[in-house]
Amino acid sequence: MTTTSTTRRTLLRGAAAGAGLTALGTGRAPAAPGPAPGAPPDAADDGPHIGVLLYDGFSLLDPTGPAEILARLPGARVTMIAERRGPVRTDTGDVALVAERTTAETSRLDVLLVPGAGERGTVACVENPALLDWIRRVHRHTRWTTSVCTGSLILGAAGLLRGLDATTYWASRDYLENECGARYLPERYVRAGKIITAAGVSAGVDMALYLASLMSGDTVAQAIQLAVEYDPRPPFDTGTPDKAGPELRELALRLLADSQT
Amino acid sequence: MTTTSTTRRTLLRGAAAGAGLTALGTGRAPAAPGPAPGAPPDAADDGPHIGVLLYDGFSLLDPTGPAEILARLPGARVTMIAERRGPVRTDTGDVALVAERTTAETSRLDVLLVPGAGERGTVACVENPALLDWIRRVHRHTRWTTSVCTGSLILGAAGLLRGLDATTYWASRDYLENECGARYLPERYVRAGKIITAAGVSAGVDMALYLASLMSGDTVAQAIQLAVEYDPRPPFDTGTPDKAGPELRELALRLLADSQT
Repeated sequence: MTTTSTTRRTLLRGAAAGAGLTALGTGRAPAAPGPAPGAPPDAADDGPHIGVLLYDGFSLLDPTGPAEILARLPGARVTMIAERRGPVRTDTGDVALVAERTTAETSRLDVLLVPGAGERGTVACVENPALLDWIRRVHRHTRWTTSVCTGSLILGAAGLLRGLDATTYWASRDYLENECGARYLPERYVRAGKIITAAGVSAGVDMALYLASLMSGDTVAQAIQLAVEYDPRPPFDTGTPDKAGPELRELALRLLADSQT
Repeated sequence: MTTTSTTRRTLLRGAAAGAGLTALGTGRAPAAPGPAPGAPPDAADDGPHIGVLLYDGFSLLDPTGPAEILARLPGARVTMIAERRGPVRTDTGDVALVAERTTAETSRLDVLLVPGAGERGTVACVENPALLDWIRRVHRHTRWTTSVCTGSLILGAAGLLRGLDATTYWASRDYLENECGARYLPERYVRAGKIITAAGVSAGVDMALYLASLMSGDTVAQAIQLAVEYDPRPPFDTGTPDKAGPELRELALRLLADSQT
C-alpha cells in the first residue's frame, strides 16, 4: 500500500466504511519498494509464522482459503512449504502454487496447516515416511497443528490423531476411524488440544476463522470475516452427504475423479 | 487417479457414499503418466476453457475459490493467465500462483474470471490500458465474463459495466457507482447478461456455484457443492458491513492495509 496510490485513488472507501484507508494507520511497514514478482517474502520477526505444506495433487482451496484468512492476523507471515521449492500442482494438474521453502529448511512453525488432496496426492503423503517424520518433528513445537479435508488422514498417518476427536472429508470418515484411530465428528472443524482438523475443502475457511479467534481474539477474527466479506449464501443446500442424498454423492465423487489427474 | 492407488487403498469411500471410487467410471482419461511438477496442463478439447487473470497483488482466495469449483465441471480446463508467465504474487507478497499462459497468447475463453486485489493491485490494473483492452477483446467472445471483489472495478474500467447492475467489495461500492457507472447491489453475485460480478473475496465461491449451474445444470452444481463440502458454518456472523458495525469495519480495513505490501 503506497502513499502514492492511496492518495491518487481510494477504491476501498465506501460510504459504509466511514473512513478511508488513507486515514488508517499501517502498523506493518511495506517492504520498500515491495517484493519483486519472483522473490520470496521478507522475513518478519513479530507475528505468527504460518506454514502450509504443499505436495503434488493438493486441492487448491484447501490451503488458499485458510491462507487468505490467516494472512490478515496482525504481523502474520504465511509460507508455502514443500519437499522441493518451486511450483506444486493441484489435483487437476491445471494450477500450481509456488513452494517458497523446503521442509528441510523448516523446523519451527507457529501454525502448521496440512491441506487435503485427491486419492493420488493423499496416498503419496501417507506412504512418505520422511514427510510424516517432518510433520511429527514440526508438530512438537507448534502452537497449532491443523488440517483441511484429507489432510487429517496425513496427520493420522503421522500418528497424531490416535484416540482423538477429529474430522475429515465426508467420504473419508471410515479411513480416519479405521486407519488413524480417531473418532470422526461430522463438524466443520474439531479441536483436540492443539490439533484442529477441518472437514472437506471449503471447511478450511470456517476453521481458519476459528483459529484466528484463538490466536488473536474474537474481535480480530470477526473483522477478518468482514475483510473477506464472508457472509456465505450458496445457491443450493447440498453441502453435506445427508443433505445431498445418494445420487449427488455418487456424482460428486465421479466429478472429482474425472477432474483429477 | 490411477488404478494402482485406488485398489491399494480407498481413502475416499465412506459408508455414507455407498460406492467406492473403484466402482465409478472415469470419463476423463488421466494424462499418462501425469504432468510433471513444472509442466503446463495438457490441452483438452471438449469442456469449457476457464481463464483466470492474475496480476501482481491479487487476493489469494478470489481466483482459487472459483477455480476449485469450476475445475470440477465436466471436461473443464482452468488456466491461470497473466501479462507474463511465471509466479504472480498476492497482495501480502507471501504467496505466488503460477501464470501458465500470457494474455498475448490468449484470445478466446469460454469463461473469463477477473479476481480482486488490494488498492495497489487494483489501481495498477485500472491504469493499464493494454490489459483493459485485452479484457474487452476477450469479453467479446466469452460465454461468461466474471469478477470477484474489486475485479468488478477492473471490468468497470474496461467499460463493461456502464448502466448495468453489479456488485463489488463492500468498501468499494462508491467507486463502482461513481467511476464505473454501474448500479451497486449488495448481493453475493449479480448477473447482467453474460457478466456476473461477485462481492468480496469469499463471494467468488457462491458465484462459481451459480455459474456452474448455468453452465452444466443444477444437478452438477449441487454435486460440486458436495464435492467441496460447502456447508458453511462461520463461527461468527460479521460478514457484511451492516452486521459488523463501524468498529469492525475500520478494523477490517486496517488489518487488510497492514497485511498488504
